Amino acid sequence: VSHLSLGPGGEFDRLRALFRRLGSAAGDLGDDCALVPIGGRTLAVSIDVALEGVHFRTDWLSFREIGWRATAAALSDLAAEGATPIGVLVSLGVPGDGQRATGNGSPAVQIMAGVAAAARNVGGRVLGGDLVRSRRYLVDVCVLGLADRPVRRSGARAGDGVWVTGRLGGAGLALAALRRKGGRARLPRSVFQRFAHPEPRVAAGRWLARHGARALIDISDGLAGDAAHLAAASGVRVEIALERIPCWPGVAPRAAAASGEEYELLVALPRRWGAREARAFRRATGLTLTRIGWCVSGTGLRVTDQGRPVTPPAGFDHFPAR
Amino acid sequence: VSHLSLGPGGEFDRLRALFRRLGSAAGDLGDDCALVPIGGRTLAVSIDVALEGVHFRTDWLSFREIGWRATAAALSDLAAEGATPIGVLVSLGVPGDGQRATGNGSPAVQIMAGVAAAARNVGGRVLGGDLVRSRRYLVDVCVLGLADRPVRRSGARAGDGVWVTGRLGGAGLALAALRRKGGRARLPRSVFQRFAHPEPRVAAGRWLARHGARALIDISDGLAGDAAHLAAASGVRVEIALERIPCWPGVAPRAAAASGEEYELLVALPRRWGAREARAFRRATGLTLTRIGWCVSGTGLRVTDQGRPVTPPAGFDHFPAR
Repeated sequence: VSHLSLGPGGEFDRLRALFRRLGSAAGDLGDDCALVPIGGRTLAVSIDVALEGVHFRTDWLSFREIGWRATAAALSDLAAEGATPIGVLVSLGVPGDGQRATGNGSPAVQIMAGVAAAARNVGGRVLGGDLVRSRRYLVDVCVLGLADRPVRRSGARAGDGVWVTGRLGGAGLALAALRRKGGRARLPRSVFQRFAHPEPRVAAGRWLARHGARALIDISDGLAGDAAHLAAASGVRVEIALERIPCWPGVAPRAAAASGEEYELLVALPRRWGAREARAFRRATGLTLTRIGWCVSGTGLRVTDQGRPVTPPAGFDHFPAR
Repeated sequence: VSHLSLGPGGEFDRLRALFRRLGSAAGDLGDDCALVPIGGRTLAVSIDVALEGVHFRTDWLSFREIGWRATAAALSDLAAEGATPIGVLVSLGVPGDGQRATGNGSPAVQIMAGVAAAARNVGGRVLGGDLVRSRRYLVDVCVLGLADRPVRRSGARAGDGVWVTGRLGGAGLALAALRRKGGRARLPRSVFQRFAHPEPRVAAGRWLARHGARALIDISDGLAGDAAHLAAASGVRVEIALERIPCWPGVAPRAAAASGEEYELLVALPRRWGAREARAFRRATGLTLTRIGWCVSGTGLRVTDQGRPVTPPAGFDHFPAR
């Protein structure tokens, strides 16, 4: 999940209400990261908690994968700011007695190995940590980066194109299989990896920031949900054509648009952007960049299927009101 | 608890082993804060997790106090670096359904009000947050500050005086009363406040950093435990005279030296420091500053009672191996 997801949906309404009450102590809470000017630079920071049974299950992922995935999710907020990672601080909750919990090869050590690998993978390091015995495994990751050209969610203007990096729906495909009895065994490795080993789009975010991106958000709540956040923050209507969405093989556009925790980037770019710029992006990052719609005057999200308006796919809510 | 407590004791050994395995990704993990140079300034960061049943109980503290206390504990790590707070990021875990959990006057809102008040109290603000439904209340606080003259644990030298701010033992007194049936009702308000509403010694830490402190640590694991950390980090022996410890009324020196979560500062100062400097400190901060011992050649901690060596009081371990 992102730093503070402001948009429609149960979790977002509650978070918004919660942080609104902080009054004057609150910073700029409506983006993937908070930005802090320091000595002529701009620090980008965000925090992202992952809890067993809510964000991961220990029978789905190894402890190393749990550490990687929680850290990659947090680093994705830096990517969505166009920031360069500095490092992470992580609080771990581990069940059991302390000796077994933190011995050689223990879950805590495995989780921290995954955390450290994910940080190193984007040029960051582990800056600090804390540890508590808890009933369920917990990995809370605070990320720090430098964003000399930060790209907020709020910069999109009517006329901008709406683009997405990579392909969507792989994480949802993996999640659906993991939820089925015996599904893990039949899951192709590439699909499982998409879920277990997400790669935050740090280089892509930086490239886009340097090349004039107007607004940027990572896809953690699902394309439809995050497009709605971007629309709300920018004061535009976002129109998305379902048939243009780059989908993971075997995934329908509607499912791809609803799939959460994809950790691709959704970006608003000037109208003139086209195939040539997308090719330059691909050369620089190895990722596709696909235009899936436009920003227009108005508010909210409009989704079409072959030109016909359809109901936007449901978002992805970690905190459903039961 | 501090950023990463390295010294004797079960928790510390396990943490040290855990973070040692991070290898080259690890930063400078042996201090209250990690230090990150940014644009000619020095950022100090730390993370500090508080979990219901381990660090607090909801029948002891109001939710607002829970938020304040968790945040004050984390900010104390900035104080122990001589840093000026910028702000905090906080992940909350709250039980129950999201609606009730985050509605008006709900626990989550009360906790965040306490977090924001503690941050504001030292000139900081809430920079970001995350929220998850969890079985137990959880408050994980990452603190950011500027430390242009950071004071590490490792700078003490043989010949330095060892000093402590304020008085010790109040938090332990409150904790003991809270653990007794009906103890809360008989607890004087000042003692309860010492536990529920600790004030991180931010101004004191800054003053000491500006006036030549050699080594600084906050008292979270108990004076004896934290003195041992300082000795280990600095490569000196710390000698403490029990009878010199400034004690909370009704607390014996031995209990005061064992009491954790006091959030006073333990500081090594040049030999020449005396009553005049302590008076200047008091004028600036409103706090007493008391010399309780010396740094000498050697290793470890030596505690005396009227000149006679005694066994150091036991430390304070949040993560006992059971």
